[in-house]
Amino acid sequence: MRALATHPAARGLADDCAVLELGNETLILTHDMMAEGVHFRADADMADVAWKLVATNLSDLAAKGAEPLGVLLGYCMGRDDDRFIDGLREVLAAYDIPLLGGDTVRADGKRTFGLTAIGRATHKPVPDRRKASEGEAVWVTGLLGRAMLGFEDTTGQGPWADAFLRPRARLAEGRALAPHVGAMMDVSDGLLLDCWRMARASQVTIDLDSALIPVADPARTHDCICWGDDYELLFTLPAGSAPPVPATRIGSVSSMDVAALWLDGKILTAADGLGFEHR
Amino acid sequence: MRALATHPAARGLADDCAVLELGNETLILTHDMMAEGVHFRADADMADVAWKLVATNLSDLAAKGAEPLGVLLGYCMGRDDDRFIDGLREVLAAYDIPLLGGDTVRADGKRTFGLTAIGRATHKPVPDRRKASEGEAVWVTGLLGRAMLGFEDTTGQGPWADAFLRPRARLAEGRALAPHVGAMMDVSDGLLLDCWRMARASQVTIDLDSALIPVADPARTHDCICWGDDYELLFTLPAGSAPPVPATRIGSVSSMDVAALWLDGKILTAADGLGFEHR
Repeated sequence: MRALATHPAARGLADDCAVLELGNETLILTHDMMAEGVHFRADADMADVAWKLVATNLSDLAAKGAEPLGVLLGYCMGRDDDRFIDGLREVLAAYDIPLLGGDTVRADGKRTFGLTAIGRATHKPVPDRRKASEGEAVWVTGLLGRAMLGFEDTTGQGPWADAFLRPRARLAEGRALAPHVGAMMDVSDGLLLDCWRMARASQVTIDLDSALIPVADPARTHDCICWGDDYELLFTLPAGSAPPVPATRIGSVSSMDVAALWLDGKILTAADGLGFEHR
Repeated sequence: MRALATHPAARGLADDCAVLELGNETLILTHDMMAEGVHFRADADMADVAWKLVATNLSDLAAKGAEPLGVLLGYCMGRDDDRFIDGLREVLAAYDIPLLGGDTVRADGKRTFGLTAIGRATHKPVPDRRKASEGEAVWVTGLLGRAMLGFEDTTGQGPWADAFLRPRARLAEGRALAPHVGAMMDVSDGLLLDCWRMARASQVTIDLDSALIPVADPARTHDCICWGDDYELLFTLPAGSAPPVPATRIGSVSSMDVAALWLDGKILTAADGLGFEHR
């Protein structure tokens, strides 16, 4: 939503999801797009595109500890529509969520797809990337860099072949973590960039220890923590407490100093190319 | 969603909106798209495109008697983005609803925009196009054909100049009507086509009397009732009862006979070109 930052109604959209109180419930809403040439290649299997479109939106819900209620699809028809529907069927079945509605248009040129995912909060306050506090420890689920290795695997036979094309949203982990975390967000654009964002949003400093960070290829730690598309959960916990799901402690939160993010005692700034931005 | 009709999860999407029970509330969700070359011309003022994108989605909520809670936008950047944001600001202010979130992508070629609108039902059961019953009268708000005349008005000075570019969603009317109607839907694709859809969805026959239908140009009644984009509300009421908002009785509902729709005693079929379909 950066292009809309000048819109008064868009101010405060610091987070990826909208949180809406309604009666006794709290709704979580997110809308992410995928565009040909930006998020997927022209020759991509459209079943994978459908899978990823849904999974990435569900990952936003996971970071809120939300239970998905369904999705609405904005679909540009034109090529391999049957494959897209195959992938959509697979991902909705895998997560057991309904397609609530949507719209289709026929469009030439490069196509874009939009998905709105709606969920209900399972814990209040709803986890938020802005809530990291001094003294907390920083944790991450899973292994970073799996999507990168999957992307590079031209054989499609390696252990991470599906990691780039068919990511998993950490919904169960997000729900389990929600009552315990200080801050939480998903790692969509690379661990370093998302840590930097969490630190900035929380007005704290995060110190990471690269030796602690779980990576899929230890010989390429830096690549693994700058690459995006892993959709793990990044969160903070009070020092000394252990998470209810498998995760790794990778650093700590301190009061804001000269930089938002330190790695192994070295300052990282946004200009260092922390991760992957689509524009 | 016709292209997705083969998807098991999409079955039953007979209506334009999703209705979702959540706690004590009932959510209404809709997602409509607009595409360059299909819904707007390449030289359109993008402020008008933004307005119409929001208003047409709100019209879907109006037909459910819903109170809008906000919108999420999927936006393809590229041309006249400032004008789009101007129009977005205007339409959100006009309806006093927030932009909850969304996503942007940069796309070349023809652009598409998607909008998800979310609302809460103000009356249960939620009005539905499938609920027209034998013996009811058929009603419509406003004048049909205003959008057509606005589209044709190349001077931009006529009385309906804004009707095509900046339609109004009948939100207040929808809420007032919700407790009283049998069936209700908005007239997005032309009165005849939408009457045919209501009759089919309700498994009834609708008889219309063209002399009763309120049109913006009585010399061109047929054009006025086949053209879309008016976003009036079409609804049924028990015979003899009057609506709580200005509207006109245009016909009646009978048990299903050989055709879904009759106009002045003549059968109309889908093949008659009842209205406007985008594909």
